[in-house]
Amino acid sequence: MDRLMEKVKVLKNPTVMGLDPKLEYIPFSIRKKNIELYGNTFKAAAESILEFNRKLIDAVSDIIPAIKLQLAYYEMYGTEGLKAFEKTVRYGHEKGLLVIADGKRNDIGSTSEAYSSAYLGETLLEDNVTKPVYDADALTVNGYLGIDGIKPMIDDCMKYRKGIFVLVKTSNPSSVQLQDMVVQDGRRVYEVMADLVSEWGKDTVGKYGYSPVGAVVGATWPQELKKLRARMPHTCFLVPGYGAQGGSAEDVAGAFDNNGFGAIINASRSLMCAHKLQRWNGKFSEEEFDIACREEALHMRSELQKICNF
Amino acid sequence: MDRLMEKVKVLKNPTVMGLDPKLEYIPFSIRKKNIELYGNTFKAAAESILEFNRKLIDAVSDIIPAIKLQLAYYEMYGTEGLKAFEKTVRYGHEKGLLVIADGKRNDIGSTSEAYSSAYLGETLLEDNVTKPVYDADALTVNGYLGIDGIKPMIDDCMKYRKGIFVLVKTSNPSSVQLQDMVVQDGRRVYEVMADLVSEWGKDTVGKYGYSPVGAVVGATWPQELKKLRARMPHTCFLVPGYGAQGGSAEDVAGAFDNNGFGAIINASRSLMCAHKLQRWNGKFSEEEFDIACREEALHMRSELQKICNF
Repeated sequence: MDRLMEKVKVLKNPTVMGLDPKLEYIPFSIRKKNIELYGNTFKAAAESILEFNRKLIDAVSDIIPAIKLQLAYYEMYGTEGLKAFEKTVRYGHEKGLLVIADGKRNDIGSTSEAYSSAYLGETLLEDNVTKPVYDADALTVNGYLGIDGIKPMIDDCMKYRKGIFVLVKTSNPSSVQLQDMVVQDGRRVYEVMADLVSEWGKDTVGKYGYSPVGAVVGATWPQELKKLRARMPHTCFLVPGYGAQGGSAEDVAGAFDNNGFGAIINASRSLMCAHKLQRWNGKFSEEEFDIACREEALHMRSELQKICNF
Repeated sequence: MDRLMEKVKVLKNPTVMGLDPKLEYIPFSIRKKNIELYGNTFKAAAESILEFNRKLIDAVSDIIPAIKLQLAYYEMYGTEGLKAFEKTVRYGHEKGLLVIADGKRNDIGSTSEAYSSAYLGETLLEDNVTKPVYDADALTVNGYLGIDGIKPMIDDCMKYRKGIFVLVKTSNPSSVQLQDMVVQDGRRVYEVMADLVSEWGKDTVGKYGYSPVGAVVGATWPQELKKLRARMPHTCFLVPGYGAQGGSAEDVAGAFDNNGFGAIINASRSLMCAHKLQRWNGKFSEEEFDIACREEALHMRSELQKICNF
């Protein structure tokens, strides 16, 4: 989280660009070229995604600190999709961005170690040789199984200077079904999870005041966000749901500490498909998605800067 | 679940073999051969895993109904590992086995659709062409986000005759941290989840009395297993934790209905590494892991048959 807060500070921007590339978001010219090269295949889709991602990264890498890749949108094209994921992570790193793998992984301890090797740490081969696999900077995690499945990831966070973001209160409407149930001591389930996450990170607080064990809290719950900020003073928030899902800069205001740190705000569709936004009034063609993305990212930065007092 | 129960009935066996292949489980001769061919690489590891898996499948495909592949153990070798996953799924199908992808995936609705395309349904390419990706028969799922993320998977279950197993009470010790919290109406969190899972499946019950929306309940909680069987009469259980994690046939007895249906019991390490078990008293060499696996699977079948009254 120190590495992340450092970048937020330098760029005066807590924006994360979500790269959740549906094929329909990608200009037809790119898709057409790859279909001509590779046929109507997963390979063609993956190549289109990679080109789309690279252009988006080029458009904003000097103004935003991080990108977040939603693994589902790569896994849906099989191993070809995962190659595009891998190459996007690497390209993001080359351009100086931090990369969050949004996989919401979870399992019992021994299996969680394997996920941690895949996304945060390194995989053991023969003769004690270890190699990084996807080598993201952070991974999103589901904490339903408790500390057993989190501990191996925290160990890798400390060893490799990585981070995790544990789901606390998710942005979707049905998050209330389980997460808002009230337990006997009066806390809601997401508050129980919040307290666990806070506890799991308490011994590893860095120089910006945040531990590598972060939390996911949706922009669609502004009140909860504010209360959780107070409840979890050492936990950095990854806040999805800004933009297309309905969250505004005001909605996420409560996520930040008094210095404007402690939260990063993810926008996916509103950046990837900025050219379609009413705000830009048809100014950008489909081919100019990257230029539109930069304009929208600058707009988002200015909105968030007002909130963060940067 | 009809397809699954049908196979359980024919084979008189509710065993699932978990293929969570750590490199150290694989005979050195296989690993050595692949290192000579491919170097000390992810490719060599993936090829060793695939060979190991195929031999294990060959050893038991006529006596067990299904295999479960823990995705983490494939993802940790990157795209090479996922190729081994893909090929193992296909090989399992060729040998007549049902295949469960153990990925514990979860996300908001639109993203959950993408996971469902990857593991259960088909992915949309250009010109309305759709293609299956990994094409497993079932996927394990984490329900922390509520119905939004489950619905797209249920839709694919109905369309493609697939199933999901939602985490209810997991086998690991720290599952108590969140799952055993008591909510205001007296239910534990895992019982709240159990009731949600039951509700999500209630309109899709098949001819064996079970819906495609199953539940994961660990063998390490025999009392809870029994109570959940009564609580969720239309929910089929996937029960991990048998064997190496400590669960016995007696421990899982409560998972079955009166006809011996309604549950499948997963054993991973005790089958993959059966040759190391005390029970077999050094009878099998490392190279005979597959023969040992069959012996152990026959033993497990006979233990479970007593319980199920098959």
